[in-house]
Amino acid sequence: MEPTDAETACFEAGIKFGTLYHQFAGTPVSPESADSLARAMEEAILNQPHCEDVTVDIRKADLAAAIDHGYTELTGKFMDVEMRIAYEGVTVRTRMAMEDGYPMMRVVDVE
Amino acid sequence: MEPTDAETACFEAGIKFGTLYHQFAGTPVSPESADSLARAMEEAILNQPHCEDVTVDIRKADLAAAIDHGYTELTGKFMDVEMRIAYEGVTVRTRMAMEDGYPMMRVVDVE
Amino acid sequence: MEPTDAETACFEAGIKFGTLYHQFAGTPVSPESADSLARAMEEAILNQPHCEDVTVDIRKADLAAAIDHGYTELTGKFMDVEMRIAYEGVTVRTRMAMEDGYPMMRVVDVE
Amino acid sequence: MEPTDAETACFEAGIKFGTLYHQFAGTPVSPESADSLARAMEEAILNQPHCEDVTVDIRKADLAAAIDHGYTELTGKFMDVEMRIAYEGVTVRTRMAMEDGYPMMRVVDVE
Repeated sequence: MEPTDAETACFEAGIKFGTLYHQFAGTPVSPESADSLARAMEEAILNQPHCEDVTVDIRKADLAAAIDHGYTELTGKFMDVEMRIAYEGVTVRTRMAMEDGYPMMRVVDVE
Repeated sequence: MEPTDAETACFEAGIKFGTLYHQFAGTPVSPESADSLARAMEEAILNQPHCEDVTVDIRKADLAAAIDHGYTELTGKFMDVEMRIAYEGVTVRTRMAMEDGYPMMRVVDVE
Repeated sequence: MEPTDAETACFEAGIKFGTLYHQFAGTPVSPESADSLARAMEEAILNQPHCEDVTVDIRKADLAAAIDHGYTELTGKFMDVEMRIAYEGVTVRTRMAMEDGYPMMRVVDVE
Repeated sequence: MEPTDAETACFEAGIKFGTLYHQFAGTPVSPESADSLARAMEEAILNQPHCEDVTVDIRKADLAAAIDHGYTELTGKFMDVEMRIAYEGVTVRTRMAMEDGYPMMRVVDVE
């Protein structure tokens, strides 16, 4: 069957998460550069269609704890992400956070 | 509301597309290296959860037409992608192909 | 032979250019998000060893001219980059700019 | 001063290392997909100017030891890379390998 609007909205939400993660994973990052990277990630993803809101938080304390050569590389374990996608009247809220050592991306709510 | 299994399946499908595109976009590519890149893309994405099948076709004729310095960078305009995602009994078929100059990712079928 | 300090400095400069280009190529970008992306690129690369100064300019007029679906993907044709690398008393100045349709990375000066 | 041919050769070598690392870091990888990824990395970088030979070895035993959710993401700690760059009669041999927990890129030989 053709997807419903809600299913398409969830597909669009997934695209944004895959984009955000794999475009920026591996970026050299330190507590000093975390904020500019988080802002760039938010603004980059907001360019994509149907993306209403993106919040990226890069946890500086976790970065600091992981760094022993001046910087590290961005991975999911250092960031919390929330996104709101709107498509044809459907709003999808999604979140990425660590669960059991894995950066889990989830649909929180569809309305 | 919590997402349905079909909505979660579509979210998972979107993640794979965003991953595939933004992990590999920008890779130096030529007609000679197109096949190894396509295979690596397929096998990389198959590692992700719920991904049952991935087919990546990098169009060598279009690469050849675009190249005037020995190689170019991979973008959506050179590739066709199909994926099948399965989640809790729901199967989602998705496709990326050029539409009106834009690499459009679509859910083809949810069952 | 073992590399000289100047040769190592040039090697380090090249690493930074390859990093900057291939970490960020493909990022969704528009005139509105160009500045935050440029700042994040600069601060990310400054984390790397021996990197003294980085300037990234993303040309908004060229972005605007290329965009017909709200945004485009970052490639070398939209940016000018300058970097200064210092290694064991050697300073290397490098630049990336378009030459004949190709984003050419060059060592400008070794002293 | 303008760079010598040897310095330019080292700069070119550095570009290839930065490219290889930051294009492919973050790719989903498992022991099963390691070979196709290593081949794609080699062939991608061989497209770049002045690159004569690239060998990428992704260490499957280390991948297997690190995996507890079916796959992991490629980082420098899983790979050994060797490259040979030739520019205007100068040949540069380079290597990336782990040193003290950091994926160190080095010029091994300039001749």
